[in-house]
This record gives sequence, structure tokens and C-alpha cells, in this order.
Amino acid sequence: MEQVDHLAHERRTAEFDVEAMKVVWAGSRHALEIADRMGRLVASDPQFRKDNRTILERKELFRNTLRKAAHAWKLINELKLTDLWHQNAILFWCPLIFDHLLQGMFVPAIKGQGTDEQQKKWLTLAYKMQIIGCYAQTELGHGSNVQGLETTATFDPKTDEFIIHSPTLTSSKWWPGGLGKISTHAVVYARLITDGQDYGVHGFIVQLRSLHDHLPLPGITIGDIGAKFGNGAYNTMDNGVLRFDHVHIPREHMLMRLSQVTRDGKYVHSDVPRQLVYGTMVFVRQAIVSDASKALSRAVCIAVRYSAVRRQFSAQDGGPEIQVIDYKTQQSRLFPLLASAYAFRFVGEWLKWLYTDVTQKLQAADFATLPEVHACTAGLKSLTTSATADGIEECRKLCGGHGYLCSSGLPELFAVYVPACTYEGDNVVLLLQVARFLIKTVSQLGSGKKPTGTAAYFCKAEHLMQWKCNVRKAEDWLNPSVILEAFEARAVRLAVNCAQNISKASSVEEGFAELSSDLVEAAVAHCELIVVSRFIAKVHQVKGRGVEKQLRALCNIYALSLIHKRLGDFLTTRCLNPEQAALANDQLRALYSQVRPNAVALVDAYNYSDHYLGSTLGRYDGNVYPKLYEEAWKDPLNDSVVPDGYHEYVRPLLKQQVSFSRL
Amino acid sequence: MEQVDHLAHERRTAEFDVEAMKVVWAGSRHALEIADRMGRLVASDPQFRKDNRTILERKELFRNTLRKAAHAWKLINELKLTDLWHQNAILFWCPLIFDHLLQGMFVPAIKGQGTDEQQKKWLTLAYKMQIIGCYAQTELGHGSNVQGLETTATFDPKTDEFIIHSPTLTSSKWWPGGLGKISTHAVVYARLITDGQDYGVHGFIVQLRSLHDHLPLPGITIGDIGAKFGNGAYNTMDNGVLRFDHVHIPREHMLMRLSQVTRDGKYVHSDVPRQLVYGTMVFVRQAIVSDASKALSRAVCIAVRYSAVRRQFSAQDGGPEIQVIDYKTQQSRLFPLLASAYAFRFVGEWLKWLYTDVTQKLQAADFATLPEVHACTAGLKSLTTSATADGIEECRKLCGGHGYLCSSGLPELFAVYVPACTYEGDNVVLLLQVARFLIKTVSQLGSGKKPTGTAAYFCKAEHLMQWKCNVRKAEDWLNPSVILEAFEARAVRLAVNCAQNISKASSVEEGFAELSSDLVEAAVAHCELIVVSRFIAKVHQVKGRGVEKQLRALCNIYALSLIHKRLGDFLTTRCLNPEQAALANDQLRALYSQVRPNAVALVDAYNYSDHYLGSTLGRYDGNVYPKLYEEAWKDPLNDSVVPDGYHEYVRPLLKQQVSFSRL
Ligand SMILES: Cc1cc2nc3c(=O)[nH]c(=O)nc-3n(C[C@H](O)[C@H](O)[C@H](O)COP(=O)(O)OP(=O)(O)OC[C@H]3O[C@@H](n4cnc5c(N)ncnc54)[C@H](O)[C@@H]3O)c2cc1C
Ligand SMILES: Cc1cc2nc3c(=O)[nH]c(=O)nc-3n(C[C@H](O)[C@H](O)[C@H](O)COP(=O)(O)OP(=O)(O)OC[C@H]3O[C@@H](n4cnc5c(N)ncnc54)[C@H](O)[C@@H]3O)c2cc1C
Ligand SMILES: [Ca+2]
Repeated sequence: MEQVDHLAHERRTAEFDVEAMKVVWAGSRHALEIADRMGRLVASDPQFRKDNRTILERKELFRNTLRKAAHAWKLINELKLTDLWHQNAILFWCPLIFDHLLQGMFVPAIKGQGTDEQQKKWLTLAYKMQIIGCYAQTELGHGSNVQGLETTATFDPKTDEFIIHSPTLTSSKWWPGGLGKISTHAVVYARLITDGQDYGVHGFIVQLRSLHDHLPLPGITIGDIGAKFGNGAYNTMDNGVLRFDHVHIPREHMLMRLSQVTRDGKYVHSDVPRQLVYGTMVFVRQAIVSDASKALSRAVCIAVRYSAVRRQFSAQDGGPEIQVIDYKTQQSRLFPLLASAYAFRFVGEWLKWLYTDVTQKLQAADFATLPEVHACTAGLKSLTTSATADGIEECRKLCGGHGYLCSSGLPELFAVYVPACTYEGDNVVLLLQVARFLIKTVSQLGSGKKPTGTAAYFCKAEHLMQWKCNVRKAEDWLNPSVILEAFEARAVRLAVNCAQNISKASSVEEGFAELSSDLVEAAVAHCELIVVSRFIAKVHQVKGRGVEKQLRALCNIYALSLIHKRLGDFLTTRCLNPEQAALANDQLRALYSQVRPNAVALVDAYNYSDHYLGSTLGRYDGNVYPKLYEEAWKDPLNDSVVPDGYHEYVRPLLKQQVSFSRL
Repeated sequence: MEQVDHLAHERRTAEFDVEAMKVVWAGSRHALEIADRMGRLVASDPQFRKDNRTILERKELFRNTLRKAAHAWKLINELKLTDLWHQNAILFWCPLIFDHLLQGMFVPAIKGQGTDEQQKKWLTLAYKMQIIGCYAQTELGHGSNVQGLETTATFDPKTDEFIIHSPTLTSSKWWPGGLGKISTHAVVYARLITDGQDYGVHGFIVQLRSLHDHLPLPGITIGDIGAKFGNGAYNTMDNGVLRFDHVHIPREHMLMRLSQVTRDGKYVHSDVPRQLVYGTMVFVRQAIVSDASKALSRAVCIAVRYSAVRRQFSAQDGGPEIQVIDYKTQQSRLFPLLASAYAFRFVGEWLKWLYTDVTQKLQAADFATLPEVHACTAGLKSLTTSATADGIEECRKLCGGHGYLCSSGLPELFAVYVPACTYEGDNVVLLLQVARFLIKTVSQLGSGKKPTGTAAYFCKAEHLMQWKCNVRKAEDWLNPSVILEAFEARAVRLAVNCAQNISKASSVEEGFAELSSDLVEAAVAHCELIVVSRFIAKVHQVKGRGVEKQLRALCNIYALSLIHKRLGDFLTTRCLNPEQAALANDQLRALYSQVRPNAVALVDAYNYSDHYLGSTLGRYDGNVYPKLYEEAWKDPLNDSVVPDGYHEYVRPLLKQQVSFSRL
């Protein structure tokens, strides 16, 4: 294929230093360099080729995934990539293929809930890959409601063992990733019963399969739960079903950091504060937010490049056709997503900081900020994953018909991403938790208890309830403090409205239930404010020619497009009037024009290889059509000119060997 | 499996005659009876079993599809189902498997553009299935912009033939359904060139494959364009690529109803009015709207039933858990979709009427209403397909984790549905056409030219610009004329605003381009008004105990949930004030409570068989969990306990035959 850069003209119009932006996106020069090096390594390794992913049948797909995972491990060892940075970078470039061996949530669960000895024993085995573990919480009948799990772990003082049992069909473990075919061990969540009393759900380490022949141990039934959404996608993963028929495990396999059962069957709490487990939760959620920015930026990169390549309709008869990225409708769908990818990247980075901050506070037994941190991370998980799932599909639609081909990369990206809206907490359930925090915050406003962190703006609730937006002309919307206060005012007012309406109900619980849709909207307002404020804070810190200017534009696009999307909120709470809303729209259009010549360079700054993107439409060089054409012919249906089944089913029809009534 | 109806309690609470509602949904008692009979026939026929659809590899999937299609044809003939009703009913119950042999748009294209003789010749062959045709318009480089197609059909007076040629890679035909492997013929759109002059794009009937051995004819290259989004889904279809290398076809193969080329190469118009082709367009679009209601109702049926089965969290400790359908958040996501499915069903029914009406008008050479009809059908295609695509995915999310399993039926339903947003006109491109019509309508307001049909409300533009909503309490929102006027006022005001802003631009074209996002919103407002007004009109006509009451509630839910969703529109145009918006929300919640006990019965009224739904979660009897469990074990990955690849790739890791650095 020719080596022409069909997007060179787009790259020439960029008004900023792309290399500097790459550093900003990566987080540091060091991170960029490693990511870049590892990316090249993976892209050039034939073992990691993506051919056929989307058309392989399940068994072959799974086998292929194991092969790639083993190869990656070999590589990491051969190259002596002991540095976590390097390892993560490799894993990053090969999304999905590693989850099996990454031991998903198994390691964090033991870290969070295991005693020091338990950690030493099990984590060593896991790190050395002498065992492979999974996280078995969800059951057929219970996901969101963890306290409703039915699996039992009954202490048998005679044998000093727990008996793990699945008393009902709905108590079958269901969904754990890596469980179905690969894991040898699991952290199993079960109701702890001792001395006839039910102490609720606890974690237990259970060996599932023989380390000798990989067969399930006696009393254990394991299988894969079947095909999931999409081509390739999560079908590379063996989400599993697991049933126990009175399986005995040693008493010490209970995760005992917070509580334990003594030799004689007494249930006792340790003196470790329960709050410590929150650390794991913050860690997991920051990882999910960071994944959201990766997935969204990948989709946006494809859609932006293809929109610059694709031309459709001429302005005048006979003139060159218009690049579809020049249509304002295309811009108004695409650029807010481009801005969101950056927004989520920065809020993810900030969550990493929050994690270390929380860890320190927990170690100092300072638990005061936990409710706020919990609400913030739950809300950001919900907000970023929902927006990313919708955003990927929008990017697919922005590519017209060709986006529907697997070779565009977008169908698999969508299918593999969407469960993030459900796992680690259903997004609506999480937003209701945020809402509870907000209502509590409002109710304590008079009490002298000062909201902190991401809720600190409630301190100026009185001011925000009175606040008047002073935007008079479109450019006034470029002032970050105006934007910030508009978002703060909206969030406070929605929360206060909800609290007032709840107080009219016969009970708080009833009011909360009845108004839960409004509460979800208040929660979203709180979370969107966090993202906007983090983006604004980040803009000031960046370096490099033109970088700040571009990010400021994106930050404004993120905020103003949200104002447009949630206009009902802003207007019903009287934060804005209709004229100010119209001015926000005018400014938004101006910002789109400003970003337009930089769009391709802004996605180049992600530094994604063509291998990573895996997209005929998102190619760096923009040479889309020959590649689409070439990929088509690889479909197995093209193995023969006359398809399988023609002779049996089609020819008899054509040859009138069946008689027909008119259809 | 036990034969208990786990949803019996839900069915007992219904406050209306479900059988009567089935008639309303089906359109007539006759239609219901036939659909019911055909549904049973298909469901009980082992040839139509859906096993494995989502896990078959492409070749097997395709072969299976051919088998089912051939079987359906055999059945139709054996049972002598000469009645179109019966035939369509059978096809309905087996979605997708027939499209190949249904000859897609091939037949309508010839009907619309062929002369009487051409119709007689080609349609007879097609109906008898002596040939199989496809519709080859889109190319690799051009979809939306049909006038930009590059394939040429050059008249050669020496041989009295057209020479069909693909001059560039981007001129390759790309996407036509049925082209890749099955079709023997195609209607090919190409630029007609005669006497050195290019007369633009015209349709030609081209034979692609030998009727003897099915091999492509000389000069013709055909293949499948490769895997598409999702499991099963559109991968049952051989969307194809087609290239011509100077292929000769007889002159008479040009579709010549509107124009032709004479023996000596003159291009001449016939006296048939060009407007006649609009009939086909209305026909195709009404079919798409009708498909939207089918697809959305299917997803809603699954989500409603499962939401009534699924229980999560108890109200009090120890009490029975709450059905998730009782959560207001679940209702506020689900019930507007339930209402939309009914709304789209009724607007689809009305479009059928519109089609016969237009056909009559066209025959009477009355073309006055065409622009309005064009805008209306374009807009409704866009509105219903976008809402349905989003709605299916929302239904999937409403099912929590289990909705991600293929056995839920939702992933395939989504993947197979989404291209409806793109084919037959990209939804945004269509809305821009609606907007053009609206702007023109506004510009002619003073001129005495009276808007008709769905645009008739512009006649009272002056009144609507002044209109004040008189809602004072929540129940005022139950008045259909208030709702109607609110939607009319919003639509008129958005259109007028756009027109005014455009008039400030340096040219209409520039203004239109710059404001195209606002214009799209105005177009959506126009289309939503049409759906609301058709729903209101329908409610008065229905019969049966309690039926009207239920539909009135659904109609109000449809309208009020739209008001909430588009609140920015209603508030910026000052159709409503914030208090009235809050009252609409209050009323909406009350309506949810009213519909709640009827929800399961309202989806029962679709009369969908379990076979048709193809969903473990949407089963009529609600016996979800055993079925989920049973389906899981069918995955090929469960063929063996120890998976393929374990010995090569996993065991060496576990056995430390590779050395590890800490990860
Ligand atoms: C790809 C994937 C991987 C997974 N991996 C793992 C794993 O490794 N280990 C593991 O243990 N689990 C895993 N899970 C399971 C996952 O954690 C659960 O699916 C998730 O917690 C959601 O629970 P659910 O499925 O029960 O949803 P449900 O709670 O049944 O949700 C159904 C509907 O009910 C609503 N709802 C529920 N409760 C409320 C409420 N209180 N108020 C209002 N609405 C409510 C929800 O919003 C949703 O619309 C995985 C799931 C998926 C899809
Ligand atoms: C499953 C499937 C089946 C199909 N079957 C057939 C078939 O049987 N026969 C056939 O001939 N074709 C078929 N097609 C092709 C289909 O008709 C085209 O994909 C469709 O017309 C959209 O055109 P496009 O792909 O060129 O999109 P594009 O026009 O390239 O769209 C890309 C983006 O540009 C935007 N855009 C384009 N023009 C404008 C504008 N003027 N203003 C603003 N924005 C604009 C769009 O909104 C979109 O976001 C099929 C496609 C699919 C996916
Ligand atoms: Ca095979």
C-alpha cells in the first residue's frame, strides 16, 4: 500500500505542539516514553496480530486469547520487565487478552480483606502464577444487592472447616470473570453461619480445580455462562457459573482481616477499622474511570480521523466534496466527545491522586472524608462509563454505514465496553448512593458540619441559591468562574429542591423512593460539576506551545455542551435565563470552529498505534478505502465464490424445483 | 421444566381486556388471528429453531440462514399460503432469515422506475424466484450523496448496449444486502453517459451471476464485505462488494419509466411525472417505522417481564425483596419506552394510510402535498429509528448483568437494529431535509400558501407564537389539547427562531450550515409533534374494556416524558415556565403508578411467542433462572471441562515452567 499521509493537510493546520500534548495526555514524559516503546513492541509482534478476532468461533477465540496471554507473560519475563510501568503498558496495548491472568479482582480482594499472613501466602502464589484466582461475588439471583447473596459458609467445629454450599439454583455464582475455564481458586462471598447464627456475607478463599489436572474438585460444578454481546469482545473471557455441594475448606481460608471465627466457632471482630476496605474500592473505581477515557478516546480517534477523510456532497456543483467533519451537525456530536475523552482522562488522573490521599488518611485513621470520597468515586464511575458507552456508539454512527463493519473496530469496542455501566455497581444504583450523600449533606447544612472535598461547594450554598449568572454576551461564557458557579448553583439547587420535596413526604424513605428520578438528576449534576472543576484546574497546569489554549477550548466545549444537554436543569433552577442559554450555544459554535483545525492533531496526541486502534477507518495515514476493501476479502464467506448451501437451498429455488405462489 | 406462571400475579392486576388490546396492537381481529396462527406454526417447526445463532461462525450461520429461508418458501407453497397476509406473517416471525430472498429493495425499485413491460418481465421472474435481485446503490465512497456515485453506464451505439464500469476503487458497490453471495441480478445505479454527456445517476438491471453455475459473469467481481456488528444479527446477510470491468448490458436494461436512451443514443424524458417515484419512498419509510415499533416492543416486552421477575433489595429486613419494576428510576426509564412502542405502532399504522392516500393523489397528478409528505416520512424514519436503537440498549441495561448475555436476546436485537439509523438515509441528513422544509414553510407564511397535513399547525403560527400554557396543577397536564398545543408551540417557535437567525447570516446557505444543529432540533420537534398528535387521535378510536384508559395513560407518558427530556426547548421558547415543568414531572410519576399494575399485560398484548422473543429473560411464564442456567451449558466452551489451550498455554504457567517477575 502507498505510503502517503492522507491527513497531512489536517496535521499542518494544528496550532499547538502535539508532542507536548502527548506528554499531557500520558501524564508524564516517562509514561509517554514507556507507553510508546511498549506499544511498538506489541504492534510489531506477530503473536499479537488481531486478525480474525471478530469472526472466530468461541473455542478458537478463547484458545487464541490464552495463547496471547501466555506470550505476553513470556515476553514480560524474557525482557525482564520487572517495572510495573512496563508491565502495565504492555497490558494496555493488548486490551482484554490479559484479564484472565491478571486475576481480576482476586488480588485486590485479598489485599483489602486478608490478614498479613493471608496476603503473604496467597498473593505470593498469585503473583507467581502458581494459582489463578477470580472474584466470585455475584449470583444468578443477586448482583446489586450483595447482602442478599444465598451461598452459605457454615462453620463445622468438628472438623474446624467451613462448608461452602449452594442451597438454591439462584445461589449459583454467576458472572465471575475467569471462573468458567481458567481459575484454580476464587474469593467466594458467602453468608457466614456459625453456631446457628447468620453473620452476613464474608469472603472465603476456595480452591476450585485440581492443580494437577485442572479438574473441578469434588462437590464443585463449574462452567462458562455462554455467549455475550458482540463479536470477539467479552467472549474472550470465561465468565463462569459455580455451584457448591457441601465443599469443605479450612477455617483459615476465611478472609480474616476484619473479623474471624475462632476454633470453637465464635464470631469475633478484629480491631482493624472496617473503613479500611474503602481503599480497594477507590482503587478499583479510579481504574474504571481511567479505562473510560481510554475507550472513549479510542472511539473518538477513529471517528475524528474518518470524518476528516470522508467527503460527502459538494458545496458547489463540481467543487471538491466537503469533509464531513466540516458539517456543524457532525461537530456538535463529535467535538463534545473529543472534549469528554480529555475530561475523563484528567478526572481519572485526579482520582489516582485521591486514592493515595485516601490511603494516607486511612492509615492515619482519619475517616471523616470517606462518605464524600465514596459518593465522588461512585458518581464518577457512573458518569464516565455511561457517557463513554453512549459516546462510542455515537462515534460509530458518525462513521455512517462503514462504522457498522467490524473492521472499523467500533462494534467490538462498544460491545466490550458497555458492561462497565453494570459491573462494579449498576450506574443507577450508584447514582442513588450519591444522592443519599447529597441529601444528607443538605440536611446537615445548618449543623456546623462543613462539607469537604468535592462537596465543599455546599459551604457556599446560601450564596449559590441566590447566585445570578451575569453572562451578557457569548464571550462571557469563556470565563471559567462563570461556568464553575453555574454548575455549582445548578447542583446545589437541584439537591436542595429534592431535599425540600422529600421533606414533604410521609417519611424520608418514601420521599426518597418516590423522587428517585429527580435524585438521580441531582447526583448527575454533582458529578458533572466535579469533572468540569477538575478540567478547569488542569488547564492551568499544562505546558507546551498552544497546549493550554486547546485544552481551554475543550474544557469550554465540555461544559457548554453539557449546559445545552441539561438545559432543563439550568433553566428550571433559574441558574440561567433563555438568553444566556442561547449565548452559550453561540459560544459553543465558535468553539467548534476554533477546535476544527486542531481536531486531528488532538487525537494524534493520544499516541495510539494503528495496531491498538484496530480500525480500518481510524488509520493514522487516513488511507481508508484500500484498507476497507482489503479487509473485506478476508471474511471466510469469501473462501469460495459459490457459497456453502447454494446447491442444497438456493439452486432448487432458482431452478423451479419448488413451485411458487406469488409473494 | 415446571409449568407455573411466575407472572400470574402481574396478569391478575391488569385493569383492561388484554385480548381487546391485542386486536388494537395487531390492527384488526383478522390480522391478529393470522399473526397468531402463523406464529404458532413457526414456533413449533423444528427447522426454525434459533439454537446457536449467536455462536455459529459465519459460514455455518449463513448456510443455516439459507436453509431456513428455503424451508419457509417450501412451507408457504405446501400450505398454499397465497394470501399476502399469511406470507408476511410467516416472514414476520422469522426476522432476518428472509431478507435474502425477499429481494430487498430490488422489487420496489423496478416497480417504481421500470416501464410496464419491464415490470412484467422482471417482477415475474423475481416473484417466481427464477432470479434473485438486490439493490446496488451505495459505493465505497458515496452513500448519503447519491449524486456523487462514480459507477458509469456508457451507452455504446455500435452494440446498442450500456457498458457498466467501476472507474475507481471508491466506485466499488459496497453494502447492498444479498449481493455478496446470493443475488443473480441487481438494480445498479450508475452515471448515465451518452454522446459524451453525463446525465447523472440512473438505475440499470444487471445480471451478475450465471443462472447455470452461479459464477460471476465475465468482468464482474463480487464478494462479501465482511463481519458486521454483533452475534448473528446482520451477519446472516451477505452485504456485498461489486466491481465492473466494462460489462455490457442491453440498452433495454436501463429502468426507463422516467427517461430513456434511444437506439441512436439520445437521452429523452418520458411524459411520466418524476414525482411518481415518491410513492416507493413513502412505502419503504412506512415499513421502516413499522419495523421500529416491532423491534422496540420486543425489547420492551423482555425488559418489562424481567423487571417484574427480578427482585433486588428488601424494603425491610427480612421482608420479600422488591421487584425492580417497582423502583421509580426503573419506571422512568422503562415506561416511556413502553409508551414509545405503542406510539410508533400507531404512527406506523397511520403512515400506511398516508401511503395509500399519496398513491391516490399521485395517480390524480396531485403533487401539492409531496414536500410535506416527504418531510414527514423522512422525519419519522429518523425519529423512530433513533429512539428505537437507543431504547433497545436502555432495555438491555435495565436487565442488569443478565442483559449482557446473548441468551437474553437483547444484544442481537440491538446489533441487528442499529443500522436502521443509517440505511435508507442517515438520520441526521434526513432531519436536515425536514429542517429545509420547515424553513421554507416559515418563509412562505405570509404568502397565502397554506401549509397542509402534518404542517397544518403552521396555519395558526401567530396564535402559537403568543400561546400561553394555562397549566396550574398536575392534572391539567392530562388534557390532550394542552399537550398538543405545547408541542405545536414549541415546534413553531423553534422553526421561527431558526428562520430568524438564518436571515441574519450573509446568505441562507451559510446561515443554514452554521445553524444546522439548531435546525435538527427544530426538525425533531416537528416530528415529535406528529407522533404525539397521531397517538392522541388513535386513543379515541379504540374499543374494549379499559383499553382506552390504558392508551390514554401511555399517550400522556409519551408526551410528558418527552417534555421532560426536551425541557430546554420548552423553556427557552417560553412555552412553559419552571413550575409547569415541575407539574408535568409530578403528573408523570402519577402516570407511572397508574401503568405499573398493567405493565406486564401491556406487553402481553403484543402477542409475541417465546420463540419470537428468543429471550431467557422475556419468557412469558417468567421462569427465568432455570432457563438462564440451562442455556449457559450449551456454549461450546462447555464441551470439555478442561478447555482447549489449557495444556499448551496455562499449565506451563501454573507449573512454573516459565519464570516470573512480580506483576
Ligand atoms: C461483563 C461482566 C463481568 C462481571 N464480572 C464479575 C466478576 O468478576 N465477579 C462478580 O462477582 N460479578 C461480576 N459481574 C456481575 C456484576 O457485578 C453485576 O451484574 C452487577 O453488580 C449488577 O447487578 P445485577 O446484574 O444483579 O443487576 P440488577 O440489580 O438485577 O439490576 C437490574 C435493574 O434493577 C435496577 N435496580 C437494582 N436495584 C435497584 C435499586 N435499589 N434501586 C433502583 N433500581 C435498582 C438496576 O438499576 C437495573 O436497571 C459481572 C457482570 C458483567 C456484565
Ligand atoms: C446494514 C446496512 C445495509 C445496507 N443495505 C444497502 C443496500 O441494500 N443497498 C445499498 O445501496 N446501500 C445499502 N446500505 C448503505 C446505506 O444506504 C448507507 O450506508 C447510508 O446511505 C449512509 O451513507 P454513508 O454510509 O455514506 O454515510 P456518510 O454520508 O458517509 O455519513 C457519515 C457522517 O457524515 C454525516 N453527513 C453526511 N452528509 C452530511 C450532510 N450533508 N450534512 C451533515 N452531515 C452529513 C452523517 O450524518 C454521518 O454522521 C446499507 C448500509 C448498512 C449499514
Ligand atoms: Ca469451526
